[in-house]
Amino acid sequence: MTAPNARLEAQFAFLNEADRLKSVLRATTLVDGSRRENSGEHSWHLTLYAMTLADQSAPGVDIARVIKMLILHDLVEIDVGDVPIHSAQGKAHASAETQAAEQAAATRLFGLLPPDLAQSFRALWEEFEAAETPDALFAKSLDRVQPVMANLMSGGGTWTRYNVTSDQLDSRVGAKIAKGAPALWTYIRAKTRRFFGN
Amino acid sequence: MTAPNARLEAQFAFLNEADRLKSVLRATTLVDGSRRENSGEHSWHLTLYAMTLADQSAPGVDIARVIKMLILHDLVEIDVGDVPIHSAQGKAHASAETQAAEQAAATRLFGLLPPDLAQSFRALWEEFEAAETPDALFAKSLDRVQPVMANLMSGGGTWTRYNVTSDQLDSRVGAKIAKGAPALWTYIRAKTRRFFGN
Repeated sequence: MTAPNARLEAQFAFLNEADRLKSVLRATTLVDGSRRENSGEHSWHLTLYAMTLADQSAPGVDIARVIKMLILHDLVEIDVGDVPIHSAQGKAHASAETQAAEQAAATRLFGLLPPDLAQSFRALWEEFEAAETPDALFAKSLDRVQPVMANLMSGGGTWTRYNVTSDQLDSRVGAKIAKGAPALWTYIRAKTRRFFGN
Repeated sequence: MTAPNARLEAQFAFLNEADRLKSVLRATTLVDGSRRENSGEHSWHLTLYAMTLADQSAPGVDIARVIKMLILHDLVEIDVGDVPIHSAQGKAHASAETQAAEQAAATRLFGLLPPDLAQSFRALWEEFEAAETPDALFAKSLDRVQPVMANLMSGGGTWTRYNVTSDQLDSRVGAKIAKGAPALWTYIRAKTRRFFGN
């Protein structure tokens, strides 16, 4: 790329393509139940969760890095769509097919960027997906907490739609939240008992 | 507040109320022109702008702080609504009435938070609004660039709707962008010539 504005052209090609995340619909609704949430506004809400619940993170977690992961975490859905955690008996979300499709999407989307940004953005997304570092574990916890709160506020939401049991809530959602933010899961789980009976 | 979960209750009262930003509609449309953008997804897109265009910021700008400002910058619209920059002949956006309403909204919304967070979030929002520090000037520039790009991509957008002239574009938009990201304005302004003829 030798044109004088080649770098800016690549940066805006990525930013304009990223706009499509606002058209990816999730299973979860807004808190007021009025419509389904899209993955762009969901990503914003999660960054606000990270700022607001920073005191729930483990020692050493870098909230600025967590926020950057959350900004990027759902971009691959532009190609793959949102795969609801409770759909297909909980089997679709982490399937090999979904993961391969997300890897291909990451290659295409981050590949729009100048190489230095492509590399650093993809590294952050891979770290989030691997869910091993303290930063990624906290980011993953928030990504699981926010739809639980939306379901609580909107009268059951995806739990009702997918006939989720309390065991499934604990295994698909609770275990992930507890890894990165244990006290948050204790607090939220207590609120879910009126929906699940236990 | 003496209840054991009083802090978490306040944190989630704020996060649930913030959800309403997803229902505040802006004048600008999505890049594909399919519908108007809401202020929640707009805020997410701006955080991605900050990550992607960090190399356009002045020396010393702290991108992590810029991102936090952008996450918070439109929350007051939950009470006030979005005031389009080109509406009412460009006079509504920064009017004393709008500013007073936004201050009242900030008091109500940030007042939902525990005091320490209320203070730090409001300070970031006030810094953004004052548009004096390098971090705030860069954040403001991005907030002006993103709708220009949406108008470019969607065939004119709010420029057509509000009969915006090139002088108005320069004074209402360009001057703000140039303060925080001058090379970005030069680049974007060149692209607008096919709409404005100069």
